[in-house]
Amino acid sequence: MVESDALQSIVYSRGSLRLLDQRKLPLDVVYIDVKDSADGWNAIRDMVVRGAPAIAIAAALALAVEISDLDFTGTPAEAASFVSKKLEYLVSSRPTAVNLSDAATKLQSLVSKTSESAKDSKAIFQVYVEAAEAMLVDDVADNKAIGSHGAEFLQKQLGNSKTISVLTHCNTGSLATAGYGTALGVIRALHSGGVLEKAFCTETRPFNQGSRLTAFELVHDKIPATLIADSAAAALMKQGCVQVVIVGADRIAANVIKPVSWESKGDTANKIGTYNLAISAKHHGVQFYVAAPVTSIDLSLPSGEQIVIEERSPKELLNSEGGLGKQVAAPGISVWNPAFDVTPANLITAIITEKGVVTKSDDDGAFDIKGFIQSAK
Amino acid sequence: MVESDALQSIVYSRGSLRLLDQRKLPLDVVYIDVKDSADGWNAIRDMVVRGAPAIAIAAALALAVEISDLDFTGTPAEAASFVSKKLEYLVSSRPTAVNLSDAATKLQSLVSKTSESAKDSKAIFQVYVEAAEAMLVDDVADNKAIGSHGAEFLQKQLGNSKTISVLTHCNTGSLATAGYGTALGVIRALHSGGVLEKAFCTETRPFNQGSRLTAFELVHDKIPATLIADSAAAALMKQGCVQVVIVGADRIAANVIKPVSWESKGDTANKIGTYNLAISAKHHGVQFYVAAPVTSIDLSLPSGEQIVIEERSPKELLNSEGGLGKQVAAPGISVWNPAFDVTPANLITAIITEKGVVTKSDDDGAFDIKGFIQSAK
Repeated sequence: MVESDALQSIVYSRGSLRLLDQRKLPLDVVYIDVKDSADGWNAIRDMVVRGAPAIAIAAALALAVEISDLDFTGTPAEAASFVSKKLEYLVSSRPTAVNLSDAATKLQSLVSKTSESAKDSKAIFQVYVEAAEAMLVDDVADNKAIGSHGAEFLQKQLGNSKTISVLTHCNTGSLATAGYGTALGVIRALHSGGVLEKAFCTETRPFNQGSRLTAFELVHDKIPATLIADSAAAALMKQGCVQVVIVGADRIAANVIKPVSWESKGDTANKIGTYNLAISAKHHGVQFYVAAPVTSIDLSLPSGEQIVIEERSPKELLNSEGGLGKQVAAPGISVWNPAFDVTPANLITAIITEKGVVTKSDDDGAFDIKGFIQSAK
Repeated sequence: MVESDALQSIVYSRGSLRLLDQRKLPLDVVYIDVKDSADGWNAIRDMVVRGAPAIAIAAALALAVEISDLDFTGTPAEAASFVSKKLEYLVSSRPTAVNLSDAATKLQSLVSKTSESAKDSKAIFQVYVEAAEAMLVDDVADNKAIGSHGAEFLQKQLGNSKTISVLTHCNTGSLATAGYGTALGVIRALHSGGVLEKAFCTETRPFNQGSRLTAFELVHDKIPATLIADSAAAALMKQGCVQVVIVGADRIAANVIKPVSWESKGDTANKIGTYNLAISAKHHGVQFYVAAPVTSIDLSLPSGEQIVIEERSPKELLNSEGGLGKQVAAPGISVWNPAFDVTPANLITAIITEKGVVTKSDDDGAFDIKGFIQSAK
């Protein structure tokens, strides 16, 4: 479904699913066969696959493989109930993963509705398998659309004749999505278009998603790339080495339903360190973009202030290898280890989505998210 | 020479020198006996002791121990030559350490001058031992003066009634100096004075001087302290958790001898990530201080632009434990690993030295380093 030479974390064809074991990256490239929902449950629980969209799609496809040629003798209603229970079970592998439970709810509702009119259980399974397959295709297509919208917009912004260098943070690539990636998708599109001078990726402390995963994807795709410590970003910008920062988003506050302040439209929660980069970018006149699917835009969220920031284990800083290695830090020291920070909209140049690029309105300088969503429908 | 309960990396009394083995920190506290210049040479080459002032003093004292009761039968000139050759040898342990070669040159000149009038070789050795001992005493005294000037200044700035929280970067404490420390000395003084709410230290990637050494000193001294990832600093400031950032300096451009632009007076080179912190501090209205001895001020340097930034081994980012552990990052990725960055004077609130605090002049808003040095003489 994606080109064979592109990095694929989810390799699927009907009746067959293989997942790239991300625990072994970047040193070993090993795929794991997933034959049913039990295999999928284990792969998700054991972090073979990570990244919100990737988890949801891997779970859905694990069940698709299981039922693709299942000898099931029950009624359509029993088939729908079978699918629904398997999905519940899959959700229990990572109960806090919102994309996973959202996807399960949608798929459950689809099979339940289909069972009302289906002539046999085979029809239920057929509908499910096609829906799960569509999730994979759609996610890759959305990411490619993000990439091409972003690359086109940036070329216009920066003049067609120039090449640009881009700094990114964390991992937003093929390893976090069904394929291609969001922020890293824009970098891929710039590279394909011959516009990318160089990509810089941060280490992304404390879990090193940048040095482990993003660096792996960039090397895999032969994109000219350099790894820096998170704290070297400002020095890099000062030297004029990057013209653009592009990051992903966990959640974007749209402030559409209950307007509080126009300034908060577009506040973005993303991996810790994103806000640091946004401040440095502003200081150096470097453009700062968020690349994310429209589903990341939370229409009801009034501002970034309402986003509760999860704190992760102190071990990620106390031990090497993001907490998996031996103790490095002084015993007895307290740790503050927030998973995310919030970048206020005023530090963001534009938001790149699969439907196009959300820019700031000339009227009030705020992101016109409502207008964008209405016109994109 | 410092209080017995304070953390000492250099424990000296005449005829005896013990160095805290910093390679074993923070998990083990082990001292190594240094009986002569050969032991000193090994300790410096093998990184038992690190930090520019600490290296110079450890080397000088290693030789002081060797000659404190040496049975030497030569002339005063021969004694001076003996000392001079031993110092040359010690410098060869870390040829690029400027403090070390500066100290050796000064001590060589002192013994050479003394040999012209000394009545015997014992007198030469006596002069040398006293000079080496003075280096230790003076460095600790200077650091304590930096601490008290800094604490007094901050209390005035922030109002006497308040307690404050301070963020620091890298290690500038007892482990990098003869004792007490520079930026960490100010934190110690604030804590002794009951003014410190909490100290925050960055991990200080890629070599983890913050999580390994600064965290160790803060825990040792029972100073309330929290470790953060370098990239979490902006989020911490946004939450209003720190009022002040204090960092050390490798070199401060004074721009006194050849004035180029008043704006460059006070440009400061320090550990990579310092510039990042300074930009975030400015963005959040957090005060940003540099704490360093007057010897760090380079009177001839016209601006920070002239400071050549050393690049360190990619391995520090590619492998865990600052390069000493196993590979973490993707094989084949390029790395940019600058050791330092330069923080321009306009982001610095004031420079804290052992002679007092250098502030900006009301006339042009620039640091009046010339006036400060003249009045401090």
